[in-house]
Amino acid sequence: MNDTFSLPVLTTEYVTDGVRVDELDFTNCGLSVAPFKASIISIAPGCSSPVDQHEVRECWVTIGGSGQLQRDDDFGQLQPGSVVYFASQQKHQVHNFGDVPLTIFSTWWKP
Amino acid sequence: MNDTFSLPVLTTEYVTDGVRVDELDFTNCGLSVAPFKASIISIAPGCSSPVDQHEVRECWVTIGGSGQLQRDDDFGQLQPGSVVYFASQQKHQVHNFGDVPLTIFSTWWKP
Repeated sequence: MNDTFSLPVLTTEYVTDGVRVDELDFTNCGLSVAPFKASIISIAPGCSSPVDQHEVRECWVTIGGSGQLQRDDDFGQLQPGSVVYFASQQKHQVHNFGDVPLTIFSTWWKP
Repeated sequence: MNDTFSLPVLTTEYVTDGVRVDELDFTNCGLSVAPFKASIISIAPGCSSPVDQHEVRECWVTIGGSGQLQRDDDFGQLQPGSVVYFASQQKHQVHNFGDVPLTIFSTWWKP
């Protein structure tokens, strides 16, 4: 019996100032139970994620806080419940101009 | 240029009193860009999801509100940021005893 069932963290990476990425452990006996990888991205107030661009497809679900997102040449607002998809090679960067942490569930997979 | 990049809703289903499931549209030209399906589950205060049990694997990410989760014989608390995995055939049901909606991002896929 657990207080919470939340998945354990596999690795923690501080990718730049104020940006922490906790990869979640979807493995069981070393095998992945999911066709994707996933992490929790935390961006401190006043901080921004690095510009990211990669072959894998990605999806962000905003859990808490808010952010200004740039995806290629488009700009938009992230708020709790926003679900955003990034196609392969789409550039993306988010800025947390708020006063609380911006928390994102990120999942990514090969095309 | 969008106010938000949030994915559109494909279908909306009211599965029982106070429980709404909005399946998100991960298709492009009819083809899925993701190896999973996904929905936003909204559970009104005082309401519960039906007991669910199925072959597909599932993952819940809690976005807002809180809930009491039962997974087989275990009980736990959902809060924003909780990420929970359900193996094939694991029974799961959540009760929203709070006074705000419980909002969950759900994703599921074949084993």
